[in-house]
Amino acid sequence: MLFLARMDVTFPTHLTEAQIAEFQVREKEYSGSLQRSGKMAGIWRIVGEYANHSLFEVESNDELHQLLGGFPMYPYMKIKVTPLAKHPNSIR
Amino acid sequence: MLFLARMDVTFPTHLTEAQIAEFQVREKEYSGSLQRSGKMAGIWRIVGEYANHSLFEVESNDELHQLLGGFPMYPYMKIKVTPLAKHPNSIR
Amino acid sequence: MLFLARMDVTFPTHLTEAQIAEFQVREKEYSGSLQRSGKMAGIWRIVGEYANHSLFEVESNDELHQLLGGFPMYPYMKIKVTPLAKHPNSIR
Amino acid sequence: MLFLARMDVTFPTHLTEAQIAEFQVREKEYSGSLQRSGKMAGIWRIVGEYANHSLFEVESNDELHQLLGGFPMYPYMKIKVTPLAKHPNSIR
Amino acid sequence: MLFLARMDVTFPTHLTEAQIAEFQVREKEYSGSLQRSGKMAGIWRIVGEYANHSLFEVESNDELHQLLGGFPMYPYMKIKVTPLAKHPNSIR
Amino acid sequence: MLFLARMDVTFPTHLTEAQIAEFQVREKEYSGSLQRSGKMAGIWRIVGEYANHSLFEVESNDELHQLLGGFPMYPYMKIKVTPLAKHPNSIR
Amino acid sequence: MLFLARMDVTFPTHLTEAQIAEFQVREKEYSGSLQRSGKMAGIWRIVGEYANHSLFEVESNDELHQLLGGFPMYPYMKIKVTPLAKHPNSIR
Amino acid sequence: MLFLARMDVTFPTHLTEAQIAEFQVREKEYSGSLQRSGKMAGIWRIVGEYANHSLFEVESNDELHQLLGGFPMYPYMKIKVTPLAKHPNSIR
Amino acid sequence: MLFLARMDVTFPTHLTEAQIAEFQVREKEYSGSLQRSGKMAGIWRIVGEYANHSLFEVESNDELHQLLGGFPMYPYMKIKVTPLAKHPNSIR
Amino acid sequence: MLFLARMDVTFPTHLTEAQIAEFQVREKEYSGSLQRSGKMAGIWRIVGEYANHSLFEVESNDELHQLLGGFPMYPYMKIKVTPLAKHPNSIR
Repeated sequence: MLFLARMDVTFPTHLTEAQIAEFQVREKEYSGSLQRSGKMAGIWRIVGEYANHSLFEVESNDELHQLLGGFPMYPYMKIKVTPLAKHPNSIR
Repeated sequence: MLFLARMDVTFPTHLTEAQIAEFQVREKEYSGSLQRSGKMAGIWRIVGEYANHSLFEVESNDELHQLLGGFPMYPYMKIKVTPLAKHPNSIR
Repeated sequence: MLFLARMDVTFPTHLTEAQIAEFQVREKEYSGSLQRSGKMAGIWRIVGEYANHSLFEVESNDELHQLLGGFPMYPYMKIKVTPLAKHPNSIR
Repeated sequence: MLFLARMDVTFPTHLTEAQIAEFQVREKEYSGSLQRSGKMAGIWRIVGEYANHSLFEVESNDELHQLLGGFPMYPYMKIKVTPLAKHPNSIR
Repeated sequence: MLFLARMDVTFPTHLTEAQIAEFQVREKEYSGSLQRSGKMAGIWRIVGEYANHSLFEVESNDELHQLLGGFPMYPYMKIKVTPLAKHPNSIR
Repeated sequence: MLFLARMDVTFPTHLTEAQIAEFQVREKEYSGSLQRSGKMAGIWRIVGEYANHSLFEVESNDELHQLLGGFPMYPYMKIKVTPLAKHPNSIR
Repeated sequence: MLFLARMDVTFPTHLTEAQIAEFQVREKEYSGSLQRSGKMAGIWRIVGEYANHSLFEVESNDELHQLLGGFPMYPYMKIKVTPLAKHPNSIR
Repeated sequence: MLFLARMDVTFPTHLTEAQIAEFQVREKEYSGSLQRSGKMAGIWRIVGEYANHSLFEVESNDELHQLLGGFPMYPYMKIKVTPLAKHPNSIR
Repeated sequence: MLFLARMDVTFPTHLTEAQIAEFQVREKEYSGSLQRSGKMAGIWRIVGEYANHSLFEVESNDELHQLLGGFPMYPYMKIKVTPLAKHPNSIR
Repeated sequence: MLFLARMDVTFPTHLTEAQIAEFQVREKEYSGSLQRSGKMAGIWRIVGEYANHSLFEVESNDELHQLLGGFPMYPYMKIKVTPLAKHPNSIR
């Protein structure tokens, strides 16, 4: 079951550059593990924005919420989720 | 080079059901050919809406505009295009 | 798996009152069958609007899209779907 | 009399994690008591957001405002309330 | 129990001036009866717009929806309802 | 001459609870005096929000701006004013 | 007492060019008379739009609504009115 | 050449009342000089808001931007500029 | 003096394909003449939309409004104009 | 391949005037180098706003994102990118 997510990241001003760098390291690890497990089917940067579009392949809404809540930067993200269904014109 | 598109379709009220059905046949053919050529990397229905999210893999903005303009239903579509870049956390 | 939907209905001006009445009869039947099957967990009128909020309990995004597309008034509806997860404070 | 509420929570940056955790404990207690009393008929997490949709069964607007104002996190919530009426197609 | 409503009226273009005039006569009668019954506590024109703000004093959401649906121009109205509670600073 | 106002209050995070409480005392006094003078014809809480709708009966735009600017919480308010005219269907 | 209005004109498609031209003649006459009487203190075209910003100097909200409703094109206008007060920095 | 500007002022919370008062003195001087030079043709307070609508009579976009940038409060303003043209119905 | 315009074209449904084709021929001629005169400094298609962004180099707001009003498709365009000034970082 | 960008700059309140001035020096250098390389085809100030519209001529979305991310003020910018295609009426 597929979902499109748009995630916008805004760090609070009190975070230091070192703290942000550490968040980015942990984020990359978590994101990589989600992709290797097949739960995250893709992630792309939105040009010019500290934001991404990503595709999630999950069993349920609960699983998706749990995965999203696991992102280290989750407290600093604004996420919008769009449920996707099979398109009749898709050849896949 | 990847782009995310959202396409919303609204048919004018003067179209007959037969005309709409014909549009849908031609749309499916065109969409299929774009997917087989690799230009359209995916298309998904937005749940509950006569709309889709789709991914396009093209050489240029001009090529993308030409492909989008070729959809039979193009005159009845409202399309929003978002340019995507490689995400540093993507493992692909 | 639960989803909240908001459906706004707008009839085109060329429909007669008789046609609208027939749509309403068929809509009531379809809505009733969805509720009896447990797929639609509730439906409420938004005060002052020709619109409703409804809750759907389904197996997948695809099933939800199929159910929504089955409403007789579907061509005249604008639907927004929000995926819901279990809330940690829910006692149910 | 039923109302749908959407509540979005945003904590100010000066709150410590311990303070937030305490808010969450008190929130869970309050939310649980409202549900046991039947005043809150349901609460669901919006997938990917620190927000919920909830249903309230109350006697009056004043009672609803009083209940909402009693949430420990109320000062940090943005709430939108939609009054609901019985839907003619509801079988309940 | 008080509600603020904003009603915007848009007539479809196929209505004749005579039909609109007749709607206005029936609307005035209905509106007057609601005011005399105390259900409608006030109605004001929004300057420069074919719209009004009005206050309703009702027993329930269901009653309000029924009253609003009874306006002759209801099919041509877009209505937004805001539930109001007693304000702690009100001297009434 | 009547105006509808919607006032949303947002306190800056550096205010103490004691300071806020003092603002509320002064606000109540000022609001009460406006109501007793007849300048403020009504004030209602918007359910679930730290906001109100209120009606002002004044001689001029300048008078209204002066009255609004006199609210102790004015620096923390976002106010939207809608000018109202007599409605042809009003029986008052 | 001054008000800023923004008026956007949209003619329905069934009007002929001759009918539109006649509206424009009558509109110019009405607008001119308002300006000569001092009730309309200025009118300017918004560049690139079939819309204007105009200033009205009136005694009351009721008078303003009556003046606006008198525009021949009023049924085809969308008007937003902003009440203005004397600015402390104005030298007039 | 005329432009309508809307300016909304928001002071950061770290400014003292004395600093704000000084800004207001300097603002009044600058605004007065612009008006006396004929560059600013009018300024009005938007009722209930810390905002104004003002008219500028300038030679070019560059001149307008320079004038606006010269306001002492410019760093705390959000400005929207609308270019105006002569209206065919204007008698001036 | 430079302005950025965004023009969105929407043809009414009663226009025939032949009429639209004729509009496009006349539009191309007019657009070409504006470009050759230097008044229009550039025009680009917005990918996926029947819309353009264009740059105008004119002497005044009045001249710009006259040029825009001269487009054959002007009655079917929605235009938003943004005045531009020299940027301090521009090397031109 | 051309893109239109709109960049809005908002500095956090903790930056000193000296820090902002240094950002502006570095921004001017970077912007100048992009223009000299032909990657940035133009940059214009939006009148009255701390914002610009700029045109980028790049090989790919990835290149554009890299260039935008290189602006010294990038962490303080909100950027919206619009992909542009050749317009059939362009004479260039």
